[in-house]
Amino acid sequence: MSAGVWKEQVADKRKRQQEAIPPEWRYIDLPSNDQLNVLDVPATCGLLTPLELEITNVSDVSVLLKQLASAQWSSVQVTTAFCKRAVIAHQLTNCLTEIFLARALDRAAELDEYLKQHGTVMGPLHGLPISLKDQFCVKGLETVMGYAAWIGKVAAENAVLVDLLLDCGAVLYVRTNLPQTLMWAETNNNVFGRTVNPYNRNFAAGGSSGGEGSLIAMHGSILGAATDVAGSIRIPAHFCGIYGFKPSAHRIPSYGISDALDGQDSIPTCIGPLSSSLSGLMVFFQAVLSKQPWRRDPRTLNKPWDQDAYMLKGQNEGEQLCFGLLWNEGTITPTPPVNRALEQTKAALEKAGHIVINWEPFKHKEFYVNARAIWTSDGYADYRASVNTGEPLLHSMKPDADPSDVPPHRRPREPLSSFDVWQLNKERRELRKAHLDYWESSITRTGTGRPVDALICPGGPYPAVPHGHARPSFYTWMWNSLDYPVLAIPVTKVDASQDVKPPPHKFLSADDEGVYQLYDPVLFDGLPVGIQVMCPTQHEEMLLAIGKIVDKSLHDIGKQ
Amino acid sequence: MSAGVWKEQVADKRKRQQEAIPPEWRYIDLPSNDQLNVLDVPATCGLLTPLELEITNVSDVSVLLKQLASAQWSSVQVTTAFCKRAVIAHQLTNCLTEIFLARALDRAAELDEYLKQHGTVMGPLHGLPISLKDQFCVKGLETVMGYAAWIGKVAAENAVLVDLLLDCGAVLYVRTNLPQTLMWAETNNNVFGRTVNPYNRNFAAGGSSGGEGSLIAMHGSILGAATDVAGSIRIPAHFCGIYGFKPSAHRIPSYGISDALDGQDSIPTCIGPLSSSLSGLMVFFQAVLSKQPWRRDPRTLNKPWDQDAYMLKGQNEGEQLCFGLLWNEGTITPTPPVNRALEQTKAALEKAGHIVINWEPFKHKEFYVNARAIWTSDGYADYRASVNTGEPLLHSMKPDADPSDVPPHRRPREPLSSFDVWQLNKERRELRKAHLDYWESSITRTGTGRPVDALICPGGPYPAVPHGHARPSFYTWMWNSLDYPVLAIPVTKVDASQDVKPPPHKFLSADDEGVYQLYDPVLFDGLPVGIQVMCPTQHEEMLLAIGKIVDKSLHDIGKQ
Repeated sequence: MSAGVWKEQVADKRKRQQEAIPPEWRYIDLPSNDQLNVLDVPATCGLLTPLELEITNVSDVSVLLKQLASAQWSSVQVTTAFCKRAVIAHQLTNCLTEIFLARALDRAAELDEYLKQHGTVMGPLHGLPISLKDQFCVKGLETVMGYAAWIGKVAAENAVLVDLLLDCGAVLYVRTNLPQTLMWAETNNNVFGRTVNPYNRNFAAGGSSGGEGSLIAMHGSILGAATDVAGSIRIPAHFCGIYGFKPSAHRIPSYGISDALDGQDSIPTCIGPLSSSLSGLMVFFQAVLSKQPWRRDPRTLNKPWDQDAYMLKGQNEGEQLCFGLLWNEGTITPTPPVNRALEQTKAALEKAGHIVINWEPFKHKEFYVNARAIWTSDGYADYRASVNTGEPLLHSMKPDADPSDVPPHRRPREPLSSFDVWQLNKERRELRKAHLDYWESSITRTGTGRPVDALICPGGPYPAVPHGHARPSFYTWMWNSLDYPVLAIPVTKVDASQDVKPPPHKFLSADDEGVYQLYDPVLFDGLPVGIQVMCPTQHEEMLLAIGKIVDKSLHDIGKQ
Repeated sequence: MSAGVWKEQVADKRKRQQEAIPPEWRYIDLPSNDQLNVLDVPATCGLLTPLELEITNVSDVSVLLKQLASAQWSSVQVTTAFCKRAVIAHQLTNCLTEIFLARALDRAAELDEYLKQHGTVMGPLHGLPISLKDQFCVKGLETVMGYAAWIGKVAAENAVLVDLLLDCGAVLYVRTNLPQTLMWAETNNNVFGRTVNPYNRNFAAGGSSGGEGSLIAMHGSILGAATDVAGSIRIPAHFCGIYGFKPSAHRIPSYGISDALDGQDSIPTCIGPLSSSLSGLMVFFQAVLSKQPWRRDPRTLNKPWDQDAYMLKGQNEGEQLCFGLLWNEGTITPTPPVNRALEQTKAALEKAGHIVINWEPFKHKEFYVNARAIWTSDGYADYRASVNTGEPLLHSMKPDADPSDVPPHRRPREPLSSFDVWQLNKERRELRKAHLDYWESSITRTGTGRPVDALICPGGPYPAVPHGHARPSFYTWMWNSLDYPVLAIPVTKVDASQDVKPPPHKFLSADDEGVYQLYDPVLFDGLPVGIQVMCPTQHEEMLLAIGKIVDKSLHDIGKQ
């Protein structure tokens, strides 16, 4: 293909994307690019009616579902409201890829009719608009996934998760942006461009599910489906102040999605939700399991919802839990607001009668070296095959990046042999075993007669960063390698007066020093900060129950 | 290492193995090599007392456990009986590797003392001798796994499964033979030599768990732990007339075993039991799960025993099941006794009120090509690394094999890259999805309102074969690639008068023609023949319940 053709295709795609927005929602009075925080614009721009504002301001998914199920609000009303607010969010943060509002409104009308005729809901997500990361193929729509070469690639089938959500009564209306190759903690690609953070548009929305992060933070969606192989759900949740849930691999079906590094099964892509409430994560997880996903995706675990585990039957019904708190994993020292979020969490849990013990990092660097070797074992063959129409492979997320400057962690490795990867799999198995034993051995320190019930660690070493400044996704990819389920829970916001810059510490690495230099309380003021909470592999029900306790404890002490 | 040193090491290992048998159990009156069927020798050779014969003649594990729990029989009595009978079996079929009887008797005495002191059993396997395939590392014992280079390799830790069995109150006493590289349907290696079939010592015991097969058929063990990556539990079960159970991957812990192709995680090694009764498989599976194995092996599924699934709550409590019957998968046409076993099963199930429909093969060859490519993707690097002290890699299991003659299916492939394997993983995922959809689509043909509840297929295309004549393990490895749990159930014996050789059919392949030529009703007379029964991935409880129904139906019509 002659050089430049890909650019024409991108221009055409962007034009078609613009045209997917009804003109009356497109030409509205939006703030100039100088306005960095745009969270209030939906309330002030005049496009949304008071009812639409009321609907979209709901954070708790279960509240919205009740309104829908009782026909207090019709699905057409709710869908219209979220379509409008999503379009506003997009025009402010560039968070969307596919926009299919007419289809959504038709579907909503069908659901309203269904409820009227049957007197009952179609399923546990009846009438609820759900956004999808750009990987979830929807029949009849393109799946571009940020690659120019994939423009025009129309899906012949829905991803299994898409079918399940529809069976549950969901309304699908938009797909959301992600970075080229997916393996980035920020969101930018040559087709759809960069998604920015609605708290501060000079800052990253996170990645790879950055589109979901910005959209949900803007209340343009209340619940979205995303993927996470190294932090892609949790980083945007942390950067954008929302909730995220990375279950263990293969609990939520991945069949039929588009993916980077496709076929890399050693540390698999996990599917999970992002939401403005913890209840959204719970509703999503339960709804999908209720449809027996293992009957449609052979890799999905045959593990129905476990109510006993959710009731914390093995943890004294949650009466007095013990948490391990990991302050610093030894890669990058957390910045002050992250530390404060941990302190706040510790205080909240202790006030609620739980125990919090310090947790020392365990072989994090070994996990990272191993995981990186596995993910790059193709020597970038997958990436190269995906940019085969001339678009450049991105080496940096900086707006002014020199395309020829490839930072060390983005340099391709020599391709490995299958036998080499077998050795890495063995190494990972040993690391996982050692970590599980380490976890179990905490039984001597908890005072509960059990090992720690969950771990808590920073959502990341920093809040959102200025575009291009995210470091390798330390603090998140450890848990992928361990295949532990993880919740991302927002805790607080950066407060320049409290989160002052400390004197320099002994730097753990160049990344650590870079982050220290980068952090500026005034510049970062107001950005969200969160934590991660995790349990051992395939303990999703237990984690959701514990997450609820953590979240409630934080609210009880007046979480900001 | 100078040529021949490995032979000295082997000679020393064999000498030490011989010395592990008490002399008074060694020099007994055994039949000459001309006696092909040796099943009756334990009853006639005079080593076992009448009580020891009574104990070891029990087939039903739950019966033996009751006798032990009620102190009718002490563990020392039971263990002594099985130690003696195992040693007889070994001297007739060469089925053992490590023999550690003194340690076993000490353990049995401890358990007897425990029962006396506590008035209750230590666990669900209290006092029961259990044999182990040579892969299950036991602290302080060598793990040779059929490789000369591994002689002297003493395990520093128990495999997780070994710890769990001990926690359940089991007594460990012998480990059993397997083929060099494990990837064979027969059992022979340069260290321990060949294991033969007790029904006919000119015939193979199967592989790779051939030692277990012969030992259990001889009632030298009532329950054994083994592994299965392509048929290694089910082929010996079929060849030796016993029960076998290959669960889905990672339901029973594999951590700490020795393995071939270690680190190959695409189609993983599954751990499961072999037994002289179906109850043995059930007892083993429930006992292991009762110990929460996921707390010791991070890869073991957190999926406790599901009693509702075992009660067949979703299958009308098993009232009228529908089975798909796969007569011929299209690789090798089953020989007449195998066909008769299927006919007998169909008749038994129909008589018991169940429905049996024909099941057409679905992409079996595609599955086989894909699986073989995955398993050989190292280009034999793993095998070569394991024979690095000069012993030859076996290319044939024939007693008179020409070492330079490598049959096509044993020729090393070119090593593949990691990226190549990613493509194979994708291909396998698509095959698995297609097969699951095919299974689910049977709902239109069953008349039960459900898809087929289970499939039935031959245990293999032939009964046991003369040494060296097993073909690639068609009929079994399909289900590994699908990760379906499978039971092997013995059905009948070859009957020369019924199972006459038919006129030649149109041959499907050279293997098919070879099998046709090989089959001789008179030569094969009396050999066991079995079936496989399987359910979709991670439906072990459902499969065990259905297997019980199948086995009972067969007994009710007078299974031979």
